Parts: sequence; structure tokens; C-alpha cells
Amino acid sequence: MARALRLAERGRYTAHPNPVVGCVLVRDGAVVGEGWHAKTGEAHAEVNALRAAGDAAQGSVAYVTLEPCSHQGRTPPCAATLAQAGVGKVIAAMQDPSREVAGQGFKILTAAGVEVQTGLMQSAAAALNRGFLKRVTEQRPLVRLKLAASIDGAIAMASGDSQWITGPEARADVQRLRARSGAIMTGIGTVLSDDPSLNVRATDIETGGLQPIRVVLDSRLRMPLAAGMLALRGTTLVCCTGDPDGKALQDTSAVVKSFPVVDGRVDADAVLRELALRGVNEVLVEAGAALAGDLLEKNLVDELVIYQAPHIMGSQTMRLVNTPSWTSLTDRQALTITDVRRIGRDTRITAIPTQSD
Amino acid sequence: MARALRLAERGRYTAHPNPVVGCVLVRDGAVVGEGWHAKTGEAHAEVNALRAAGDAAQGSVAYVTLEPCSHQGRTPPCAATLAQAGVGKVIAAMQDPSREVAGQGFKILTAAGVEVQTGLMQSAAAALNRGFLKRVTEQRPLVRLKLAASIDGAIAMASGDSQWITGPEARADVQRLRARSGAIMTGIGTVLSDDPSLNVRATDIETGGLQPIRVVLDSRLRMPLAAGMLALRGTTLVCCTGDPDGKALQDTSAVVKSFPVVDGRVDADAVLRELALRGVNEVLVEAGAALAGDLLEKNLVDELVIYQAPHIMGSQTMRLVNTPSWTSLTDRQALTITDVRRIGRDTRITAIPTQSD
Repeated sequence: MARALRLAERGRYTAHPNPVVGCVLVRDGAVVGEGWHAKTGEAHAEVNALRAAGDAAQGSVAYVTLEPCSHQGRTPPCAATLAQAGVGKVIAAMQDPSREVAGQGFKILTAAGVEVQTGLMQSAAAALNRGFLKRVTEQRPLVRLKLAASIDGAIAMASGDSQWITGPEARADVQRLRARSGAIMTGIGTVLSDDPSLNVRATDIETGGLQPIRVVLDSRLRMPLAAGMLALRGTTLVCCTGDPDGKALQDTSAVVKSFPVVDGRVDADAVLRELALRGVNEVLVEAGAALAGDLLEKNLVDELVIYQAPHIMGSQTMRLVNTPSWTSLTDRQALTITDVRRIGRDTRITAIPTQSD
Repeated sequence: MARALRLAERGRYTAHPNPVVGCVLVRDGAVVGEGWHAKTGEAHAEVNALRAAGDAAQGSVAYVTLEPCSHQGRTPPCAATLAQAGVGKVIAAMQDPSREVAGQGFKILTAAGVEVQTGLMQSAAAALNRGFLKRVTEQRPLVRLKLAASIDGAIAMASGDSQWITGPEARADVQRLRARSGAIMTGIGTVLSDDPSLNVRATDIETGGLQPIRVVLDSRLRMPLAAGMLALRGTTLVCCTGDPDGKALQDTSAVVKSFPVVDGRVDADAVLRELALRGVNEVLVEAGAALAGDLLEKNLVDELVIYQAPHIMGSQTMRLVNTPSWTSLTDRQALTITDVRRIGRDTRITAIPTQSD
């Protein structure tokens, strides 16, 4: 199963909106076939493993990181395919909670006389597909907030004097965060000041042509027609409030959509539900202090990735999050740090928000 | 020599103002004696090693982390003692740059027919005694700035709502920083708001009765007579500007001393020179944003130890350093991170200031 989990990881940048899945077929103690799901619309992990095994699949045990599918989608149901291939037993790390599967895959296998076992390395398997699992169970994508600051929490001088805070290795690392995401979200302030592309440009990441949806929270539709991202391949979703009709932006490649207002801002939660409908498993937020703070205040962040540059920038600087409602110490957001590592000269801290102690 | 360096480390909390020193005597490939310097006024490392070796010292090679001393101090000169014991060769990691030694130890040995070699593991040996070496060469102690903040660089709410930011393990770790220091420096603002003790209280650290000098930078002599630290064993040095005579503080246990004014504050560099005169090798600064920022602005900090609590405290908070003169990005202080480790739930980052890139 550990091998199947590693195989699944190979689909990280290409499989979404589908989950990443790995499959290993074992007969008489030897691996006879393995596969992973590379791309939505193409063969599932089980089918790739069966193809690799050929006749050796007969009587084998299939280790698969997620319940085999039960529905005729762009590919035939894997549960039936495994049974037809003569697989004797299926060991799945976890059930697929998607409405279309939800135990039906196991039922098909059992009905066909294939022994089924589930739960092996379940938490590792669930961690692989946190975004997919959140989307199918909560109808919202996983929200990953990227922050970059000095060691004392500054992102720029108060005077506006600013440049890259982090080094080239950290920025290359952000490309990998983008490539695994179905959408990149930012605020109109960042678009107006930095004109970011929000796309995957790194040539060493094979995305199979996928580009994340670019999402701009822009309540008053200030998006410039000349914004760089509007000239790029892929979708730009501009989220406003009120009636967007008749605005010049309608004539660009942008999709303009109106959302409710909460606290004078675009309702971020409504935007997240829209992104889930569009098949986004993971959204990366690369935003200024206003949107980053808003998402934290509303408890909408699932994971933080903080790139910390080895500098003290001091007091005459801008903070990395704006949280006007956090006035008491009990308002602060406690974190559980899940990973700390050096990225070039910077430190990358990965953390998940937790209850305060 | 690696063994001698580890032995030297045993004197970390007790040897100052003397340097830490370790000595290993080897004869015929076997260790015949070892020792370290435990406490000023007591036997030096070489003498302890000779005692342990007894007659076996005859014809041995002495590995010592610092040049053996040449002067009659509270103990006889070690260079002569080594020669008298019949040691055949001395391998020293580095010369002792103190005015009273400065190669004289090596000269005594050579004159007595003992072979001398120097430079083995020199940088590791120098790192052990950075404070001592800075004091004897620059007449200033090593300045270690301790900071404790949330991951976004906040130390308290702007409302004043405050409590320990870091956990008990981090605070216990600070006790070790205090115990290795000859002085703890703070500002009068911290005394007035927190009434800190600035002493070593941890019962698991054997300091041999040493307590660091407590140093309060207090230009206008606002030190309260009821300040807790004045009731504690050891010295409290209150550094003011102008004439301290006739002030009530003169009747307490405090030593009050006047220093020049720089930028409206006590001249911190003059205070550091005073501390060097008092035999302080390392000073730990545990101060608020004003003094911490002042020392950074004046490039007086040799090492930063930053305890980072796993919290986002947000924008309605106080920053950890106040640096009004740093208005442009080029003013920021670049750091070289030398160590990162988990201390309880907090992260401790050790760094040295470096030239900006």
C-alpha cells in the first residue's frame, strides 16, 4: 500500500479535479502490475495496473489507495473491471465518499465474489486527497493560504518600498503549490498593485496542460482591462458584488460573476462553493493582507504555507495579515506546524489552524 | 580534540568570566587523563587532566582547546605545569588572544622543550568562547538578543492584552541562555511593566552560585525602589544619564552609573564597554521593542535567539522591534540562520546579523 500511495502522488499536478490514486497488483508475493491515475478522462490507476499485469492479474491482490469507482464516467467502472480481470482480493485504503461511489464500488466487487478489505493506511491515503475529499463532502475546496514575510512578519516597507521578500527557490516552490491547485485566488488590490499572472510557468512541472482558474475578489469591479492575466490561457473568474452587466470587462476573456456581500466584501465562502462546483479541489490564496486576514478571521483557511525570509525588517513596515476584528489575545489563530524546511535561504513553515489552547 | 571541546562545554554555566577550556592527555594511543575548567579561581583544565593522569602524564600528548596560560593568576601558569609534568607535546586548538597570554604560553612550552602545534579544530574552539574572545579583543561582550513573538512577529495585542507568548519549554530554555551570560540587559520600560527578576531560577542548571549582573538602561532614573530585582542576590546595575547623586536609588542594593546620551537614550555601546570591564563575556538582552530596536539599529547585536510561537496574532498587535530609522528596504537587517529547532510547541531560531545582499 505504501508503494501505491507513492504511485498516487505522481498524479499530483495532472489528475485534478479527480483524486490521485495508485494501484499495485501482487500475486504470490511479487508485484505483477502497478499504475496510477495520471489525468482526468484517461485510464484510472486500476486499469493501468491491470494493463501492466496482463494475464498475471488473474488471482492477484489489488492494493488501491481509494475505493474503485462504480460508475460509468469517462472510463468504465473500475470495480467491474477488476472483477472481470479475475482479481481475487481488493485491499483499499479508504472508501470514496463521492456521491456516485460511496461504497458502491465495494458492493460491485463483493457481489462478483471478490474479497474486499478497507482501512489499510487510511489516514495517509486521506491526506493525499484532502482537497478532493473536502470538495465532495463539504462542497468547498481546501483553502491553502500562502504568505511570504520577513522573520518579524513584514511584507514591505510602510513607505511602499517593496521587492521580492523571499528568494528564487521559494518562488519556484510556489509554482508547485500553484500546479497542484485548481484555482489561485487573490484580491483586486494585489492585481492593481502587482498585476500578477497567477499561472504555472515552471517548465520543470508537467501539468498536462492544466492551468488553475485565476480568481479575483473584486467587489466593485475595478479589474483593469489591461490586467496581464486576462491575456493568458485559461479562465479568469472575477468575483464582484451587485450587477456586473454592461461593464467593459464582459467583453474580455474574464468570467464575471456576482456574489453576496459580507462585511462590505465579496462573500468568500460563496466564492469557495462556486469553485467547488467548478471542480476545484484545492485553492491557493496568494493575496495581500486584506484578503488573507479576511479569510483567517472567517476561519476559511485549511492550511498555511509561510515562507519566512531571513531578515528583520523592523517597525516601519506593512504586516502580512490585516485582522481588524482580532482585538483580544483570545482572538489569535493557533497553528499546528506540520512541516518546517529550508527552501534556499528561506524557511517554509506549513501549518494548519487549530483551536487555541 | 573533539573530546576536549566537549569537555570544555561542561564549564558553560560556571567558568565565566574565564573561557571554557577542555584538555585530554593521550599516551600510546590511549586517553590517560582529561579535565575541564569548571570555575574561575579553581584549577584549569590542564591541571585537572594532569591530576587525573598522575604519572601517566609523562611523555603524553596534551590536546587543549585554548593556549595554556602563561601568567600566575589565581592558579599557577599551566604552560609551566604541563612542561614540569613531562608532557611531550601540546596540541592547542588556538592561541589565547588575552593580553596576559597572547603566545606567551606557547613560548614557555617551547623553551622547556615541549613540542607545540596549534590550529587543530580552531573554528570550533573559537565558537565555544565567542564572548570571551570578543571581550579580550574588542573590550565588549558578545550581545545576544532574545526575542519571543508569534509567527507573524507580534509580542502583544495593541490593546495591551498580553501574556506569555511562548510555552514553558521555551522559557526554560531562556534560563539556560541566562545561566551562560555574565549579564542580562533590559530597558526601564520592561521593568516598569513586567517587574522581571532577570535571574537564573532553574534548579536543573548548576551555575556554581553565579548570577548574571542585571543591567537596566534607565536614562531618567525611573527605576522603582520596589523593583523585584533589587531584593535579589547579585548585582543590579542601573545605567542612567546625567548626575545620579542624591537619588533614593543610591540607598538600595543597586549600582547606579551615569553614561553618555546618544539619540536621547543611554549610550548602549558605553554600557557594553562597562560590562566588559566587569568581566562579562556574554550579555543577554531581554527587552522590549524600544531597546531591542535601538541595539539592532546601532549594529550592536552579535546573535539573535528568536522564539516563535505557533500563532497568527494579526494586525492589532505590537511589533517585536521598534526601528524608526529603518525606512527603506535597504535598512533591513539580513540574518544568517545558524540553527532552527523545536522547543516544546515553539520554534527557536538562532541567527547572526550579516550584510544585506
